[in-house]
Amino acid sequence: MDKLTGIEAFDEVKRLIVVAAHPDDLETICAGTVYRLARRGVNIFSANCTLGDIGTQEPDFTRPALASTRLAETEAAARILGIEQTYNLGHHDGELVANLELRAQIARLYRITAADTLWTFDPFWTGQIHPDHRAAGQAALDAFMPSKMPLYRPEQLNEPGACLGCLERIFFFSTDRQPDIYLDVTDVYETKLKASMAHRSQFPKGEESLEWMKGRDHKAGEKIGVTYAELFKRVGVW
Amino acid sequence: MDKLTGIEAFDEVKRLIVVAAHPDDLETICAGTVYRLARRGVNIFSANCTLGDIGTQEPDFTRPALASTRLAETEAAARILGIEQTYNLGHHDGELVANLELRAQIARLYRITAADTLWTFDPFWTGQIHPDHRAAGQAALDAFMPSKMPLYRPEQLNEPGACLGCLERIFFFSTDRQPDIYLDVTDVYETKLKASMAHRSQFPKGEESLEWMKGRDHKAGEKIGVTYAELFKRVGVW
Amino acid sequence: MDKLTGIEAFDEVKRLIVVAAHPDDLETICAGTVYRLARRGVNIFSANCTLGDIGTQEPDFTRPALASTRLAETEAAARILGIEQTYNLGHHDGELVANLELRAQIARLYRITAADTLWTFDPFWTGQIHPDHRAAGQAALDAFMPSKMPLYRPEQLNEPGACLGCLERIFFFSTDRQPDIYLDVTDVYETKLKASMAHRSQFPKGEESLEWMKGRDHKAGEKIGVTYAELFKRVGVW
Amino acid sequence: MDKLTGIEAFDEVKRLIVVAAHPDDLETICAGTVYRLARRGVNIFSANCTLGDIGTQEPDFTRPALASTRLAETEAAARILGIEQTYNLGHHDGELVANLELRAQIARLYRITAADTLWTFDPFWTGQIHPDHRAAGQAALDAFMPSKMPLYRPEQLNEPGACLGCLERIFFFSTDRQPDIYLDVTDVYETKLKASMAHRSQFPKGEESLEWMKGRDHKAGEKIGVTYAELFKRVGVW
Amino acid sequence: MDKLTGIEAFDEVKRLIVVAAHPDDLETICAGTVYRLARRGVNIFSANCTLGDIGTQEPDFTRPALASTRLAETEAAARILGIEQTYNLGHHDGELVANLELRAQIARLYRITAADTLWTFDPFWTGQIHPDHRAAGQAALDAFMPSKMPLYRPEQLNEPGACLGCLERIFFFSTDRQPDIYLDVTDVYETKLKASMAHRSQFPKGEESLEWMKGRDHKAGEKIGVTYAELFKRVGVW
Amino acid sequence: MDKLTGIEAFDEVKRLIVVAAHPDDLETICAGTVYRLARRGVNIFSANCTLGDIGTQEPDFTRPALASTRLAETEAAARILGIEQTYNLGHHDGELVANLELRAQIARLYRITAADTLWTFDPFWTGQIHPDHRAAGQAALDAFMPSKMPLYRPEQLNEPGACLGCLERIFFFSTDRQPDIYLDVTDVYETKLKASMAHRSQFPKGEESLEWMKGRDHKAGEKIGVTYAELFKRVGVW
Repeated sequence: MDKLTGIEAFDEVKRLIVVAAHPDDLETICAGTVYRLARRGVNIFSANCTLGDIGTQEPDFTRPALASTRLAETEAAARILGIEQTYNLGHHDGELVANLELRAQIARLYRITAADTLWTFDPFWTGQIHPDHRAAGQAALDAFMPSKMPLYRPEQLNEPGACLGCLERIFFFSTDRQPDIYLDVTDVYETKLKASMAHRSQFPKGEESLEWMKGRDHKAGEKIGVTYAELFKRVGVW
Repeated sequence: MDKLTGIEAFDEVKRLIVVAAHPDDLETICAGTVYRLARRGVNIFSANCTLGDIGTQEPDFTRPALASTRLAETEAAARILGIEQTYNLGHHDGELVANLELRAQIARLYRITAADTLWTFDPFWTGQIHPDHRAAGQAALDAFMPSKMPLYRPEQLNEPGACLGCLERIFFFSTDRQPDIYLDVTDVYETKLKASMAHRSQFPKGEESLEWMKGRDHKAGEKIGVTYAELFKRVGVW
Repeated sequence: MDKLTGIEAFDEVKRLIVVAAHPDDLETICAGTVYRLARRGVNIFSANCTLGDIGTQEPDFTRPALASTRLAETEAAARILGIEQTYNLGHHDGELVANLELRAQIARLYRITAADTLWTFDPFWTGQIHPDHRAAGQAALDAFMPSKMPLYRPEQLNEPGACLGCLERIFFFSTDRQPDIYLDVTDVYETKLKASMAHRSQFPKGEESLEWMKGRDHKAGEKIGVTYAELFKRVGVW
Repeated sequence: MDKLTGIEAFDEVKRLIVVAAHPDDLETICAGTVYRLARRGVNIFSANCTLGDIGTQEPDFTRPALASTRLAETEAAARILGIEQTYNLGHHDGELVANLELRAQIARLYRITAADTLWTFDPFWTGQIHPDHRAAGQAALDAFMPSKMPLYRPEQLNEPGACLGCLERIFFFSTDRQPDIYLDVTDVYETKLKASMAHRSQFPKGEESLEWMKGRDHKAGEKIGVTYAELFKRVGVW
Repeated sequence: MDKLTGIEAFDEVKRLIVVAAHPDDLETICAGTVYRLARRGVNIFSANCTLGDIGTQEPDFTRPALASTRLAETEAAARILGIEQTYNLGHHDGELVANLELRAQIARLYRITAADTLWTFDPFWTGQIHPDHRAAGQAALDAFMPSKMPLYRPEQLNEPGACLGCLERIFFFSTDRQPDIYLDVTDVYETKLKASMAHRSQFPKGEESLEWMKGRDHKAGEKIGVTYAELFKRVGVW
Repeated sequence: MDKLTGIEAFDEVKRLIVVAAHPDDLETICAGTVYRLARRGVNIFSANCTLGDIGTQEPDFTRPALASTRLAETEAAARILGIEQTYNLGHHDGELVANLELRAQIARLYRITAADTLWTFDPFWTGQIHPDHRAAGQAALDAFMPSKMPLYRPEQLNEPGACLGCLERIFFFSTDRQPDIYLDVTDVYETKLKASMAHRSQFPKGEESLEWMKGRDHKAGEKIGVTYAELFKRVGVW
């Protein structure tokens, strides 16, 4: 596996699945690259493991009401980014566990989407302090192997269009373990902002609530001499 | 424990907790008696173990949206009946399990409400085909003993107003194991209907959707020569 | 629901699922009636929850080898009885638990077989000393309700031919709680014996190993004045 | 199995195991009969599933200190009754669950004690309001079948003196489901009281704290015209 | 976050919680710095996740007796060090699991202590061979995020003095992943020894049993040219 | 612990246990060194945590039949390599979890084999994409500490020949975290191939199916100037 450091790392991607933990993770972390690929015609599938149902400091939300709101926000953002289909695996925010049930849910998505490429959280980044992020990345990684085996949860293969897991590439985001790919997202940044702001429950003041994102992406951009960048680390698979 | 067969069975009740499985269980099963007690000044607490979040045949609902709707319906019904406080324990409909977590959640309610009386599903009725009903009743019964012990989940006793479990009486509903108490609810039946109809997601055609309830309560009424009755079975406690 | 006491109880059955615990349960308990229905053209599905993989006193078997043997014996018996399809849910013998996973596995079978009728162990028979039998019956009963709801495990509904659970009738076997149906199986008893003997690992001496079965069925037969009978108890559903 | 109604029901017992939930259960429920059998030379094994570690209203006990105290009290009582060996399975009081782990722990005891007879709580008594009692009885009953199978937890069979489960008789106590055996324990009642009072943490006022026990045993005695009796229900096994 | 390498790293600490696995972890690892902070007036809370109840080679201890002994030793050490309050979460030694229950227990402590600073085991140190240490550190880290959210286990917020999690700083101990803070504890080492020796069940020969600790702390001291040092690694939080 | 970089690292090994995940892991990863030690007279114990029961793309295998086949293949390979005893812990392939049950199973093996040395998967290698490998290594590492304590699962110590865990050395394989030991296995490579090919279900084309193994071992060999090598990383224990 040669090291590819730019968009060419994704040249062969035709069907991409992004496994995140919360509604708004995809948008604020890698929406720029998602959008670039979507425009190129890549089929993009988004899976959030949790409902994001503790994600508020507002006293008026019940958990189901917040979850319901965030499902709608996810759909709105998906339309902006050209995501083909979104999935929510229904777990509770702040309590995601990388257990066999979650593994099977994600393996099912690999099979019914026939994704060739996975993006997910780096479960091995020791600076990752959100347990849901680690759990999502771990389960997504651990679903890779069994998804390829016909005797693993064979009923999943009965669903329309399902096939054996056929992921060929895995990339981690949210990592500082030597990310090897930096993507210039400057010219699609307006769309990234728009998709992120679709999560109104999270960013009530719009762009003002997203200064942290711009700062982080700007810092990444500096590494490759552009205004905004997103970064990835490729995982060796066999 | 003498057998009491009418409203005198509840003469000493001052604080009543009703542990049910789904929003609308309390209303359709025992709202008449609840309302009679509420009018008399009894403090009434209602606990639903599940969100009722599979309770629809309509394709447009997501589970969180349905849950959110039903929480609101529960509040509306509670206002009609004079229920002081409602609790929802947040479990998924169709998947309630009488495990130690649920037991602890219910024991906490016994302690923070200082209820003296419990009504819940008969977990031993062999004709009970809804697993959530059995689980709710079982957990409610099993929470009784430990709720009285100071070394059981002692942090619960720190909450404002909490005390050691002080339930003195337990009654089962939804039973055909020789119910010993039949309550005439004829004159409050309009209120029972109104409270039940507050669950619009369940009874979209209003009273027409509740013919089964009226039929069942009428059949119970025949046993004591009234139009509508609700029935209970007393549990011996020590 | 009128009480039906003979074969007319099964007159409307078109698709029958039998949920048992071990390979050979169906055969030794109700194979006579199964065969009568199969001959009439009823589609019959057999589900064993466990692999039966501790079912031997022979020291040479490993658990997987015994399981593999018993899967083959199950197929052989199914061919004798005219069973359309067998399922094995893969759990370990002696350790079946009526948990949510088993419930979901069984609900899936109700949906993909479109069975209208269920036969299973009576989970409430207090004389039932085999925990796997109780667990199988409990899980089968508890799967009934959620199988009918579209928001319960919706991915199951994607499988070819799957539909919402449409069970209309549930009958328990292995019960002494007033079984209400006695079926004369005298004229198909040879087939019952043959199907049972297909489980060679269990009945190494053939018919001689099955005297207990004949004795039990003979005793049931005496109740209705025939040589051999099988018995069932109908469950009220709503 | 003929119905035996007195001490002759235990004539063939050589090795008895009593599976209870808490320290003091055996003593207050069936110590009279235990002592009669012990005097006759029966080897008696006592197993308590929980540590009894919430069993106090005294604020000064920590849970481990209470557990430690009760283990010592159990030994003292065992010496009074002639119990050969006591086991404590280490679970927490008020939270006993009849899961596979508990089943395996109890099956191990059947195997290493080579007990031929089991006494335990009736798990099917619907008036049993202590969840630990139900769990202990359920797990003890459910351990019976697998304990007889060589492929079930085979490492247990390596322990010195261990053999395949060889229980031949099971009796329930704490039941009102037609107990069929009443044992006169009048002449050993002093010993029962002494053994019970060995649980000082539970009965700080000695015999005065045990009036309820005397009342219950007296009521049972009235059935057979003696001062004090203990009662059992035999379970059919195969 | 500037790198601070000495005691100034703790200048702003007002309320410190130390989450360890076993009684004696805090004492032998960081008691010197704890004592320095306690003397300065910092409120210090100590939480041990396990009872330490397998921590002996002496055959005479039962697990509850050992647990009880170690709770007392913990109190004695706390008094020496000026720790305000100790908590023991009651898990079994050698079997601590970083599950959601433990996470919730620790989040509760963050909330009821209003701690601003956490010290715990580095869960990512690949040389950590004690699974309890890893589990304690992981759960303590993972409790940080949800403790800040009002919809996470909201009942915890009802306890007197409880507030939303307000940890601002996290430090790992027991790490060799580039610890950045070395604290000179030479002048308080007598107190560290005294607190450690309060755990008599662990160090029966007193200071002689603690040579390993002195060796380790001496080696750390050499890095900054003092006799004894303790070391920490700061975690970036957001 | 001085760094040893060749076979002298294993000079003191007398009883070696290898904990792997699947049948064929030991053979394809470290069979060369295993065989070298076996020839020297080391007692070698092999433990596979899973049955390898999804390890096929052939549609004709059931899971139990595949498991049974692979148990036999494991025995055949063991005979080739001179392994004294093989253990299979019975878990399902693709679903191994490093939970307390697995930890206890492995601790038991440490105790009944009296192994002084452990080889297992590096659970901390971030390039390890097979979740079963990580789980096996993690559980094997985590079993080390408790296996040494008499109060941990004391019934294990009753088995014939069992003693307290006495592992003195732990080595990881399948790692790229600076492996410090490279073993020349060139002259035993035929045996490694033969043992690997004993797993016919996995390598149906014999040596041709093992080119990847030869490539990997050749690459390792280049580091120390030999044709084939195997590599290990030593873990510091205390």
